[in-house]
Amino acid sequence: MLKPVALTMGEPAGIGGELTLKAWLRRAEGMPAFFAIDDPIRLTALAARLGLAVPVTTITDAAEAAAVFPHALPVLPQPLVTQVKPGQAMPANVASVRASIARAVELAQSGVASAVVTNPIHKGVMYQGGFRFPGHTEFLANLLGLAGDEVMMLACPSLRVVPVTIHVALAEAVRTLTRAQIVATGFATAHALRVDFGIAQPRLAVAGLNPHAGEDGAMGREEIDMIAPAVAELRAAGVDATGPLPPDTMFHGAARARYDAALCMYHDQALIPLKTLGFDEGVNITLGLPIVRTSPDHGTAFELAGTGKASETSLMAALAMAGTIALNRMNSK
Amino acid sequence: MLKPVALTMGEPAGIGGELTLKAWLRRAEGMPAFFAIDDPIRLTALAARLGLAVPVTTITDAAEAAAVFPHALPVLPQPLVTQVKPGQAMPANVASVRASIARAVELAQSGVASAVVTNPIHKGVMYQGGFRFPGHTEFLANLLGLAGDEVMMLACPSLRVVPVTIHVALAEAVRTLTRAQIVATGFATAHALRVDFGIAQPRLAVAGLNPHAGEDGAMGREEIDMIAPAVAELRAAGVDATGPLPPDTMFHGAARARYDAALCMYHDQALIPLKTLGFDEGVNITLGLPIVRTSPDHGTAFELAGTGKASETSLMAALAMAGTIALNRMNSK
Repeated sequence: MLKPVALTMGEPAGIGGELTLKAWLRRAEGMPAFFAIDDPIRLTALAARLGLAVPVTTITDAAEAAAVFPHALPVLPQPLVTQVKPGQAMPANVASVRASIARAVELAQSGVASAVVTNPIHKGVMYQGGFRFPGHTEFLANLLGLAGDEVMMLACPSLRVVPVTIHVALAEAVRTLTRAQIVATGFATAHALRVDFGIAQPRLAVAGLNPHAGEDGAMGREEIDMIAPAVAELRAAGVDATGPLPPDTMFHGAARARYDAALCMYHDQALIPLKTLGFDEGVNITLGLPIVRTSPDHGTAFELAGTGKASETSLMAALAMAGTIALNRMNSK
Repeated sequence: MLKPVALTMGEPAGIGGELTLKAWLRRAEGMPAFFAIDDPIRLTALAARLGLAVPVTTITDAAEAAAVFPHALPVLPQPLVTQVKPGQAMPANVASVRASIARAVELAQSGVASAVVTNPIHKGVMYQGGFRFPGHTEFLANLLGLAGDEVMMLACPSLRVVPVTIHVALAEAVRTLTRAQIVATGFATAHALRVDFGIAQPRLAVAGLNPHAGEDGAMGREEIDMIAPAVAELRAAGVDATGPLPPDTMFHGAARARYDAALCMYHDQALIPLKTLGFDEGVNITLGLPIVRTSPDHGTAFELAGTGKASETSLMAALAMAGTIALNRMNSK
């Protein structure tokens, strides 16, 4: 049986707590049991403030979560240093935010939790509080002793995308893109599609970098010099990769039916179609980790915090996806 | 009353002729009367080959088109030098293709035609045949004696986009983008939205260049150094421009409701969302010309030519859009 999913606190002044409460209220909608690693006092107060009928039950061991989950939100306590008002972050709490993530990873590693789902953190606040990683993914890699060649996949019901370069300026993405990086990302993606998504013969669509995929070199040579050779290398190694494809014609319905994931050369080439098609339903999945980790595809939304208006759709999709991947990994063993 | 629309031949070995015939068959579906500037022999043969019941009537003056259109496809003859097989282009015909465009422009300039709609041409074939312009738009500008500061808008029912840089390698787009170019494109777009689209107070959404619009300079400085100042300049001149916006979150339904056109920094930033949302319905509109010119948003599709499988949806949208813009321009005078 699937162990419960560990859900982190995220930035406590953001919308994470509200989403956690709302997701529990909709627990009957096909999602795995989960427990929050959070401050029970703040979650209880937040539920009262928002008028959400969520009984919060403190657990002392993640193993208790499954029995509690049907009746109450199980919370493994990670107290805040200081209580917060929605939208007003306190750098003093960064240690708690960080500890919640570290605890979740530890529980997933030891097999007590089936997966980690992370609520959004706020990079600026984390930096003020002494956090030194660019984001969740790098922190997780560090906790797990990995080299940092993790891959980010974004998925919504109608599309999966994997950007080869991610959080860098567009000029830098163009300048630093390499054939080796495309190939490595392609292998990681194909592997994840097989093991995590249960697709026996995954098909990758590889985007070009330039308009019309360069039009035979007329508008850029990266397709000829780098991307086509990367596709050939992937194919030679048995990966069903196609491309380089003109980026603008690969994301409409008929085109999407031809592949299981699109390998994109830069952040917005992947994220624009993903968020155009599935803005509220996007899930971020970190590929290449020994544990399962997903997160909602949005930020802390300070402007919405405390209003009760934040949508739990993406967090619910992240929880469901984490459960599915954990099951697929169990079945593939 | 609206004069008929002049529809060019386009590459005769491509799908243009088939689209012209199919569009005429659906003439009752709210599109303006049009006439083709084409070879009547090839259109008659093509209709027979494809089993399309389209009577082709040769006219000698565009003024006859309106009376003919309800019963037959009016064709102002522009003979081919040599008949072609679908998919097999003949550079010898480039002079005819070119003459069809020049004639359409002349008729629109003199007011006999209300607008020009161009069927797709094939750049490679045109070059072989001695054509020396990068595409339709530059040729039209030359015919009209313009400086070449035309602007390309792509529109589908749910989105209008205007790329500031267009058919250049992505590295070059990033390197050559300027504040002046963004401002000029913004003015041209706002003007067209008022005059051509009848929107009294047009709202422009200006995209950033980098992921998350640079995140305050953390991932690229173009937003700070160039795009934000361009937005400020547009606003100071009375244009309702907003931005720079994170490119990935500006194209979902709720975001699109906040603007009339998105000003994009490069080709695929504009074309990916447009073709993801409206692949078969995209229309290309050249802004900044004294005549009205639209075209379907696809190429010659040699692989489909002669099969009868090409979709006329985009050409029909281009014809309808040309008629609408021509009417709006009449009404704005």
